[in-house]
Amino acid sequence: MSGTVTINSPADFHVHLRQGSISELITPHVRKGGFDLAYVMPNLKPPITTTEQALKYKVELEKIDPSVEYLMTLYLSPELTPDEIRKAKKAGIVGVKSYPRGVTTNSDGGIESYETYYPIFEIMQEIDMVLNLHGEVPSDANANIHVLNAESQFLPHLLKIHAAFPKLRIVLEHATTSAAIDAVKSCGPTVACTITAHHLALVVDDWAGQSWNFCKPVAKYPSDRQALQNVVKEGHPRFFLGSDSAPHPPHVKSTSTPTHACAAGIYTSPILLPLVAHLLDSFGALDKLEGFVSGFGRAFYQRPITNAHKFIQLRKVTEGTLIDEIYALGNETLVPFWAGKTLDYEIILTESK
Amino acid sequence: MSGTVTINSPADFHVHLRQGSISELITPHVRKGGFDLAYVMPNLKPPITTTEQALKYKVELEKIDPSVEYLMTLYLSPELTPDEIRKAKKAGIVGVKSYPRGVTTNSDGGIESYETYYPIFEIMQEIDMVLNLHGEVPSDANANIHVLNAESQFLPHLLKIHAAFPKLRIVLEHATTSAAIDAVKSCGPTVACTITAHHLALVVDDWAGQSWNFCKPVAKYPSDRQALQNVVKEGHPRFFLGSDSAPHPPHVKSTSTPTHACAAGIYTSPILLPLVAHLLDSFGALDKLEGFVSGFGRAFYQRPITNAHKFIQLRKVTEGTLIDEIYALGNETLVPFWAGKTLDYEIILTESK
Repeated sequence: MSGTVTINSPADFHVHLRQGSISELITPHVRKGGFDLAYVMPNLKPPITTTEQALKYKVELEKIDPSVEYLMTLYLSPELTPDEIRKAKKAGIVGVKSYPRGVTTNSDGGIESYETYYPIFEIMQEIDMVLNLHGEVPSDANANIHVLNAESQFLPHLLKIHAAFPKLRIVLEHATTSAAIDAVKSCGPTVACTITAHHLALVVDDWAGQSWNFCKPVAKYPSDRQALQNVVKEGHPRFFLGSDSAPHPPHVKSTSTPTHACAAGIYTSPILLPLVAHLLDSFGALDKLEGFVSGFGRAFYQRPITNAHKFIQLRKVTEGTLIDEIYALGNETLVPFWAGKTLDYEIILTESK
Repeated sequence: MSGTVTINSPADFHVHLRQGSISELITPHVRKGGFDLAYVMPNLKPPITTTEQALKYKVELEKIDPSVEYLMTLYLSPELTPDEIRKAKKAGIVGVKSYPRGVTTNSDGGIESYETYYPIFEIMQEIDMVLNLHGEVPSDANANIHVLNAESQFLPHLLKIHAAFPKLRIVLEHATTSAAIDAVKSCGPTVACTITAHHLALVVDDWAGQSWNFCKPVAKYPSDRQALQNVVKEGHPRFFLGSDSAPHPPHVKSTSTPTHACAAGIYTSPILLPLVAHLLDSFGALDKLEGFVSGFGRAFYQRPITNAHKFIQLRKVTEGTLIDEIYALGNETLVPFWAGKTLDYEIILTESK
């Protein structure tokens, strides 16, 4: 059909699905946003640090929406033992997520030194589990480290871990800088990188005084956004979508007090595939959509498409599709990214092959 | 008295006093904050572009609080003629403020090219009126210009105007970058620079998701804050206080919607002198307080202290002085910078000599 795009089984390789009533609202949005697979972040309260917790969490998510494939992860912490890693691998858990201490939502238990975890990385490399890195160092005014260079200052850690464990599969999550793109490109085939939809759209000016566009890592300079767009346009197979879609109640997104800042996080799940199509089309990369949202990530994560998978069809709509202002379920409400704006694409069909 | 500091007639060389009911609330805060002199910004609605408007505005301010000396300014715009400049000078108007288009509150009528105004600058140089520059260029993603480099990208304009009019007194307002400090230092004695209290306190991390700390120019990196602190500590006579205290109602400071960002501006007037003393003491520059808040600016603006001026005495309070959470008058309310925090200084005496 003219003006349509068909994508094989889109996969979101970084998403926050939370727990409880908010999870009931947002988990079905993975499918609503056009996605078959969710790579689920472990930063719950308390964090997911054991196989048992992860499997229990997976059951909760499958109860809410059994039509999505959930890939589970553990939170890297001192509690994590080599035995637990082996157990997790056997149970089908795919990755281990590392958060530097204090840089984002529920990261108070994050790590301070990577060397401490080398025994864990050794086992992960041996049994082929993925290491997912939140690539920021904590701000430190004395060292002139701040939210805008926190990612570039992190990159030596990435390169060092990769050099020490060249066969360990590593994903640098939600890259926001030109420096990060270059660093990942310089690595071998075991190192990949997720890019969010919103970082393809935003720059620092967009979150200055505008908390709805505030997330961690913060969106950087126009030249950085250009580098992200360029690597997508290039169709580089080690760069693929991870939405980092993160739900926060409207009142904590919209209102700061003199003593409390707004929550960091942008919610894109329910509009994700049309949003990504809209963005890629805006910078001439629509032909790379399937690789970016499905093929590249699936190849890296060894999750090939089978006949059981669905395909999604999108249509370009010249009049635009209005993004909902709010989503609600019970007492839970959420406002998506770009609420009230229009997208040039909409989903018209979700079908099995 | 031990633990006290006495300052001769503090002068705030950059303040927004607005009009109407909000002006009734904030104008007395100049005195409350310990200041004898207010250099008044002309970005009203409509902007102050004529001598007549400026004098009328001055009368309004004097009606509210006759105890403060108001130095008036005009808004640089195509309407401003050489004749009007001469008339303004005769009427005691001190400066002309230039706003680049669209970079801050009520700057939609700001300028785009400085060469257009060279005939005006020529007259200003001849009759010795001060040019006050809001030193930012508008953001432009295609040129990689954003809120964090908007000031450093402006500096070539400053240097060019200074080279063309070496005797024209110019003030680069509210400098926020190490580059700006260096640029002003590199100029001759006719070029000075104001620094706000809040830019001595904040860095980019402080306004990320925290709209109460959001202002234009935005606070920059820790190394920039260090450069501002250093030039104050150095006691450089061409760097002095201009608070840029700017009142915005709490609801436009605290709440963004998906379509409306928070207002840019930080309100420091009612706590200004104790705040500046607190900050300078925190980085070992208390001995430069009088120069920074009075002597240096008065020298540049040729407003020497006379016997008619007051002195202000501050006291160090080990238990801290709580900053008010809110100021109110009628329906107008304002929340000051650092509301609910404590300062190490308080004003104990305001006296004539």
